[in-house]
Amino acid sequence: MPDLDLHAPVEELARLLIDIPSVSGGEHAIADAVERALTALPHLTVTRDGDAIIARTETGAPERVIIAGHLDTVPIKGNVPAQWRDDGATLWGRGSVDMKGGLAVMLSLAASLERPMRDVTWVLYDHEEVEESKNGLGRLSRRHAELLTADFAVLCEPTSAAIEGGCNGTLRADVTLPGIAAHSARAWKGANAIHRAAPLLTALAAYEPASVDVDGLTYREGLNAVGIRGGIAGNVIPDACTVTVNYRFAPDKTLAQAQAHVEAVIASAGLGEWDLEWTDLAAACRPGLDAPLAMSFADAVAAAGGGAPRAKEGWTDVARFGDLGIPAVNYGPGDPELAHADEEWCPVTDIQACRAGLKAWLSP
Amino acid sequence: MPDLDLHAPVEELARLLIDIPSVSGGEHAIADAVERALTALPHLTVTRDGDAIIARTETGAPERVIIAGHLDTVPIKGNVPAQWRDDGATLWGRGSVDMKGGLAVMLSLAASLERPMRDVTWVLYDHEEVEESKNGLGRLSRRHAELLTADFAVLCEPTSAAIEGGCNGTLRADVTLPGIAAHSARAWKGANAIHRAAPLLTALAAYEPASVDVDGLTYREGLNAVGIRGGIAGNVIPDACTVTVNYRFAPDKTLAQAQAHVEAVIASAGLGEWDLEWTDLAAACRPGLDAPLAMSFADAVAAAGGGAPRAKEGWTDVARFGDLGIPAVNYGPGDPELAHADEEWCPVTDIQACRAGLKAWLSP
Repeated sequence: MPDLDLHAPVEELARLLIDIPSVSGGEHAIADAVERALTALPHLTVTRDGDAIIARTETGAPERVIIAGHLDTVPIKGNVPAQWRDDGATLWGRGSVDMKGGLAVMLSLAASLERPMRDVTWVLYDHEEVEESKNGLGRLSRRHAELLTADFAVLCEPTSAAIEGGCNGTLRADVTLPGIAAHSARAWKGANAIHRAAPLLTALAAYEPASVDVDGLTYREGLNAVGIRGGIAGNVIPDACTVTVNYRFAPDKTLAQAQAHVEAVIASAGLGEWDLEWTDLAAACRPGLDAPLAMSFADAVAAAGGGAPRAKEGWTDVARFGDLGIPAVNYGPGDPELAHADEEWCPVTDIQACRAGLKAWLSP
Repeated sequence: MPDLDLHAPVEELARLLIDIPSVSGGEHAIADAVERALTALPHLTVTRDGDAIIARTETGAPERVIIAGHLDTVPIKGNVPAQWRDDGATLWGRGSVDMKGGLAVMLSLAASLERPMRDVTWVLYDHEEVEESKNGLGRLSRRHAELLTADFAVLCEPTSAAIEGGCNGTLRADVTLPGIAAHSARAWKGANAIHRAAPLLTALAAYEPASVDVDGLTYREGLNAVGIRGGIAGNVIPDACTVTVNYRFAPDKTLAQAQAHVEAVIASAGLGEWDLEWTDLAAACRPGLDAPLAMSFADAVAAAGGGAPRAKEGWTDVARFGDLGIPAVNYGPGDPELAHADEEWCPVTDIQACRAGLKAWLSP
């Protein structure tokens, strides 16, 4: 494995990173290359944990920011090595969007910003594209919380080089209505659990989701049945019906408040007996864009052509910073709709714009 | 295979029939034995079709009745050969209830009633316990309709030796509500198909099933969701939700009328767009118990200790006689709840009572 030249043009660095395969669980080689390159820089203090790397400047500046990205990709589908397309205007290949373009921006700036005006903690981690329990950023927050203190965080997930602030939280609950089985020729001997779900579906259909302003951004919520199942045979009155409810909630609410809201909506439906099991619980994250530090970032990004900040509707790892009390935004090159696509490609201008935006914000 | 002695005591004949295994598809041996025994009786005209046998008296009496039963059983579970239990008061084994007790009654009477006061068409058929397309009675009605003309029919399915008249019809429909898929973080871009099922479930929950008097018996109807499914992933707004509806309808309705009723109930729910697919359509059968012929049968059964006739709630092959315009009842030895049970057993008194009831009705 050749050394990574962090002083190469940022788009060339992105190409080099794509050509080091790093499907989740196979991040060892790319982590080695990154560690070697960052350790060679005397202005950084480097810590490695598994296949995650934390590199910190320690200038003593009054503010510290985290800039983070994951090293892994979803599986390769004939899209490695990378290819230049459109006369070099487009970089094609697995991870060009999610998120080796963002990693290139980080590594390029980590090398060139020897004395940033804000101290920076660069975080490159493993296992983002797989089950939550393996997530490298989660592991770092448990093992090295002292290295993850900061006033603000930027996660370089693809946003087409715009700021997408914070994220909605998401939770799922299985709501089960009990019934009494019986042969359907003698239905009066049973109690139909599917019929008992009617008031819950009616309540969900009538529910009007809120739009919530948080730190200057507007988050749209949603409360939906995303699954329903009931019945075991065509001649049996069903003894159970389970509705899977998904709540996407704005970062003005804690997870506990969101759970209480869902329980209140269900309780108000008048279901009689019901059982609830939480199957997914992920907190929201505030964007923190009303703080001076964040406003200066928005200004720098706007100056780099990035447009006005918007709310992030989906859930991303910024919520892990929210858990640590750190407001956070998403900001990275590439169209998020192309993440995980076989035809994954990123405009070189996006990569350059993100480097310019972050550089303007961090330079003295 | 020894010859069947049709002049043996009826319960002994039942035991002999149990000991000839005849799981669906394996009725050849029992059909051979039955054909041989019936062909030996000069007062019967015997026709064989596959493993089904039709044996007719031809006395020229003004009325003709069909008495029918199936030769096959569900799979054997260590319950063949038969066993006498309770000092001979109980016959235990596969088919003792469903329905070699009934077959023994039929064969015993077919042999002894040389000149019944009503002409009798004895029908013993194959493939009742498997998919509808293989049903031997259905095949006979297609190939030998001329041999299945009659004024009344008795099907010797287990009823604990009581008359269970006719049967409810049953139909199933898959009602599908369409939606528009979207990521659940951006639910406003989709249309939730599960939510759209709410008015249908509300209508089904509110539906009050009728009790319908037909020919002197009361049939309880039922309209139920017996299945529901929707949703493909925990983060996707579902683009389809399918509710399986089962309608059990009284024999005052034709199948077409029952279908129209279900469509009317669904239409009245106000669902907007919906799609309907019929997955099961089985007509009802009138009991015909208001006719003199049937009333005389009820009297004979009551005299044999069988109690008052009642409606048959479930669907049985009597409906095939309904299709042919022949009113029909179920009447046979054994508790129907024990049909298909590993512990299948029949009181000898039931077998004897059914023989006595039919004999009293048919004897000059």
